[in-house]
Amino acid sequence: MPIKGDLLVVSDSNDNCRFLENLLSDSNWQVTSSFEPNRALVAIKNIRPAVVILDLPLDLMQAKFTTLLTLDLETAYVVILPEVNPREVAKFFHKNASDVLIKPFAEKRFHEAIERASEFKSLIRQNLEYRKQLEEANRELNDSLHLLELDQIAGSQIQNSLLPKTPLKKNKYEIAYRISPTLYLSGDFVGYNILYDRYLVFYVADVSGHGSSSAFLTVLLKFIFNRILKRHKANKDLDVIAQAPKGFIEHINREVMALDLDRHLTIFAGSLDTKTNKLRYTVASHMPMPFIVTSGNVIRLKGRGKPVGIFRDAEWKVEEVELPSEFLLTLVSDGVLEVFPNKSLKDKEKIISNSIKESDGSVGDICKKLGLSQIKDIPDDVTILTIRKKN
Amino acid sequence: MPIKGDLLVVSDSNDNCRFLENLLSDSNWQVTSSFEPNRALVAIKNIRPAVVILDLPLDLMQAKFTTLLTLDLETAYVVILPEVNPREVAKFFHKNASDVLIKPFAEKRFHEAIERASEFKSLIRQNLEYRKQLEEANRELNDSLHLLELDQIAGSQIQNSLLPKTPLKKNKYEIAYRISPTLYLSGDFVGYNILYDRYLVFYVADVSGHGSSSAFLTVLLKFIFNRILKRHKANKDLDVIAQAPKGFIEHINREVMALDLDRHLTIFAGSLDTKTNKLRYTVASHMPMPFIVTSGNVIRLKGRGKPVGIFRDAEWKVEEVELPSEFLLTLVSDGVLEVFPNKSLKDKEKIISNSIKESDGSVGDICKKLGLSQIKDIPDDVTILTIRKKN
Repeated sequence: MPIKGDLLVVSDSNDNCRFLENLLSDSNWQVTSSFEPNRALVAIKNIRPAVVILDLPLDLMQAKFTTLLTLDLETAYVVILPEVNPREVAKFFHKNASDVLIKPFAEKRFHEAIERASEFKSLIRQNLEYRKQLEEANRELNDSLHLLELDQIAGSQIQNSLLPKTPLKKNKYEIAYRISPTLYLSGDFVGYNILYDRYLVFYVADVSGHGSSSAFLTVLLKFIFNRILKRHKANKDLDVIAQAPKGFIEHINREVMALDLDRHLTIFAGSLDTKTNKLRYTVASHMPMPFIVTSGNVIRLKGRGKPVGIFRDAEWKVEEVELPSEFLLTLVSDGVLEVFPNKSLKDKEKIISNSIKESDGSVGDICKKLGLSQIKDIPDDVTILTIRKKN
Repeated sequence: MPIKGDLLVVSDSNDNCRFLENLLSDSNWQVTSSFEPNRALVAIKNIRPAVVILDLPLDLMQAKFTTLLTLDLETAYVVILPEVNPREVAKFFHKNASDVLIKPFAEKRFHEAIERASEFKSLIRQNLEYRKQLEEANRELNDSLHLLELDQIAGSQIQNSLLPKTPLKKNKYEIAYRISPTLYLSGDFVGYNILYDRYLVFYVADVSGHGSSSAFLTVLLKFIFNRILKRHKANKDLDVIAQAPKGFIEHINREVMALDLDRHLTIFAGSLDTKTNKLRYTVASHMPMPFIVTSGNVIRLKGRGKPVGIFRDAEWKVEEVELPSEFLLTLVSDGVLEVFPNKSLKDKEKIISNSIKESDGSVGDICKKLGLSQIKDIPDDVTILTIRKKN
């Protein structure tokens, strides 16, 4: 039988002590006894026994031990009293004694009193222990979470530094965007630049999934986009630029496939000639298709194409369209569709097109009209990119 | 004064009920009373009052209410008894009554009893409430942590898929590595390949920091390394390959600087000619320098160079060394130095060189000898890469 703990018997006579000790001889308590009350007080403070049995004259008990009862949560007190006024009994309970035994008492009652005292206190101990464990677990979880969050924040700072500045203005044109990631890192990505002071080249990409695994690929997109622009600049190949974004998605497709990652992406890539107001673009599975608002009407660009990173040697068609002299072109990533569950695709697109139409044309206001600002947990990364021309 | 809660007075006489109600008339308890014990039992179950005052004949109380006392944690019971045997008083406490009043009692004592009863129970309630809050917070933290962990695991899978297979064998040569990230994602990275069935080209890179922000750059390294190898293959420029890793670090430096990230890295890049057993290598701030074990002796490669990503147009010198006919070349990233705090750099390098010498030459055994397997929280990413030649 395992030892239950320390039990201290306190009495004013050695005989009494021995009598009570005898009653406990078959128990698995670690019993010590003291017939000197002052020493007992010291022993209680040092040993912190689980149970103390007090068998002392009433006045001595009241004078020296009743304050103890309220003080110590770890120790339970069983008080043995002579046949007294029942009010005295109530008073001891009132002072937080665990149990009171009235002399003479049955041996069974004695054991019950100790049992109850020890159980009640151990319940309190267990409770405290459990609370401590919970608090400790909470602290550890918080620390782990904090560590990962800091990591993600640092990652998202790197990712943000790869994104272009917003808004970017060029004569009557303005391009701007906002990416709202569902986690810290985004699988959505945008890039744009002005080439030869004339062509506004841009893309919106959406890597399958979200979070860090998808964000990895966006670094690559930035890098590839940079390289292409740099090469064009170095080669001064104006004719090739005029054909942009021809070959752009094919190029990315080859590079992504060479990495052999289990990731694909959708892209909308465009090149807007600010001299002729003509837009050339390629669609790699990007949806919904961009919306153009012009004098209160909303029209949709047409086009389609395979996603990137799945089909080797796939090709993408370049579309060309003349834009109205004033317009607001808005691209949204497909994450926005998940913001409106339980609706048909058609209804969702209607909501988006209305939100754009009713907005003041700024990215912020479009987000607001779409209700994105109120959503706490966006189910997927959401990107809004706008190109505006005002005369 | 705000209402404290429901208090139910149960007695067998209407007069008694009114007497007790009167005592409570100035209190802020929501008092109801019942002089029909059976109805009172129903009321207790329905209302779940904070305090019940029982003023009933002893036998009726024992028969109907004592089981209640132990059952309900939310409700505290104050029992009013006539001048009885003190054992009866003790018994009621034993059954978990909050307090016992002996008739006749002072009004002050009555209010104290109610106060104590309500406080004790509210303490239990607060305790339970706090526990519930802690458990709830724990669940939420766990969920958030799980979400971020899944994200990191997915990210590390992507990162791992960018790493070369280990070990790679080529005639008498074998190259192998192990990366132990401090978080899920690593800022350490390795790459190698065999070109023209002859040159074992390889590098070990260590991006400043660790975690996802550093891991981003490793994707780029893989991509750049791939491109260079592909170009060499396409151009069949054997002479250039023979000069490897000439220009390799300069190339990476340009690309990293073009991205304009606040990250630099150290690299050790090498090209081992398996025909001549000659090693050409470049050091970009990589430390400690690689160790070569040959017939029981440990020698160190010599060389130094600037870190990558800080100095525009920096250049790195290519060293050349003839390797022994049998050897074990071991590269470790500087993370391993942090595994032995409170030691000088010289002592740390001694530990590393001894660990390598005493190992069986496998990456696993070197890690073991370094004590890496026992460390739970590695302070920085640690990479071990070995190249062996056995005749």
